[in-house]
Amino acid sequence: MITSRQNPLIKEILSLKEKKGRRARGLFIIEGSKQVREAIASGAEIERVVFSEDYSGAEEFSVLPSVAVTAGVFGKLSEEVSPQGVLALLRIPDCTPKPPRGNCLLLDGISDPGNLGTIIRTANAAGYGDVYLRNCADPFSPKCVRACMSGIFFVRLYIGGDAVLSELRDCPLICADMAGENVFHFMPPRNFCLVIGNEANGVSDEVRALCVNTVKIPMRPTCESLNAGVSAGILMYELSERQNQQQNT
Amino acid sequence: MITSRQNPLIKEILSLKEKKGRRARGLFIIEGSKQVREAIASGAEIERVVFSEDYSGAEEFSVLPSVAVTAGVFGKLSEEVSPQGVLALLRIPDCTPKPPRGNCLLLDGISDPGNLGTIIRTANAAGYGDVYLRNCADPFSPKCVRACMSGIFFVRLYIGGDAVLSELRDCPLICADMAGENVFHFMPPRNFCLVIGNEANGVSDEVRALCVNTVKIPMRPTCESLNAGVSAGILMYELSERQNQQQNT
Repeated sequence: MITSRQNPLIKEILSLKEKKGRRARGLFIIEGSKQVREAIASGAEIERVVFSEDYSGAEEFSVLPSVAVTAGVFGKLSEEVSPQGVLALLRIPDCTPKPPRGNCLLLDGISDPGNLGTIIRTANAAGYGDVYLRNCADPFSPKCVRACMSGIFFVRLYIGGDAVLSELRDCPLICADMAGENVFHFMPPRNFCLVIGNEANGVSDEVRALCVNTVKIPMRPTCESLNAGVSAGILMYELSERQNQQQNT
Repeated sequence: MITSRQNPLIKEILSLKEKKGRRARGLFIIEGSKQVREAIASGAEIERVVFSEDYSGAEEFSVLPSVAVTAGVFGKLSEEVSPQGVLALLRIPDCTPKPPRGNCLLLDGISDPGNLGTIIRTANAAGYGDVYLRNCADPFSPKCVRACMSGIFFVRLYIGGDAVLSELRDCPLICADMAGENVFHFMPPRNFCLVIGNEANGVSDEVRALCVNTVKIPMRPTCESLNAGVSAGILMYELSERQNQQQNT
């Protein structure tokens, strides 16, 4: 049982809350029994499970390398207001850009980790299995990982600048923008990449120049914009659905 | 110029960060030049504008009763990491339930103020002008107001328990639930009320018993749920759109 915050493993886990520490060690943190269970189900590479001394369900994860810590130490590691008492360290997967395998998503400058996680969660639900990140927040930060739910294990994340655009060169890019065509009247191509831009400034000029179409969500005049996660969700589902309808007729 | 946190007006504004203070005074806080501008445009009842001594755009709001405070005092009032230097106190509108005037929304136990605000923002965009709140977070908290954007000024909010259900007695309730019919195959009635339930537990048994239909957003099997704000956005837009299509054929 680890009782001290000065223990090297505890220091290592604390360092994973920062991007620098995650990059140096190639690990990230997930928290809560549900997320650990989903990580196992997904086949993710689990380095170690950390329990609080008062966690009662440790035997569920007994096949994994694990360590117990005092409740006080666990409280320092946890990001939750009411910690469940279990977290795990996972190996960060290879995020080198590769070509998409179907409809995909390019996030161009999403800066809020909660928005980023919500979008990854929705991408998994809506079947956008390849998500490209260009100038975004780090998807492996605790706040983003929590908002991703199981999406962090099932969506393939690709991180990069020009390398991302290069892998998407054969895929028609559809830009979300208030000046675009009403998405509810738009007919998407067979395989496409939906592009969602920065929360405040939208899609960058560089990426916009590569887009073949621009779509918008119609809004009442008293409203200027939607939350980035909500827009992304409406567009992902609506574009897929319109594609399905076309294929069925 | 107010220089002290002990000033009665400053104490009053600080009290508005809590529900008790808002209820006692009938006021709530909005922050930032954009939100103050939209409040004016909406015809909301503005009690007073508060500027920081270093705010440069005060003349824009010079027709309104206003007061200047030191940057230090403003920092204590502000909820922002980088305060713009302007906020306003608004009268809380009458939220006594009244009958809906078109498609409307019933939020049954939304507990996170950010989710609540995001949903109100989307309701305004999608034309759900009447939003009924039953056992929800307080929509006039600073966190919710910020997430609402201009929605807080344009959507009619109705708060109550049985009184809310009573006003909706003639309106078909459509419940969002994972066991429902695929929303992309569903034909909504002419005027309806979409019901969104609590983030963790869904729609309450009491409200569920009143619903005539249940709809779901289809999801890949590796995903269990969507963020409440994202689900509400997809359902609001899709139900409206399907209603439009029906009326046009």
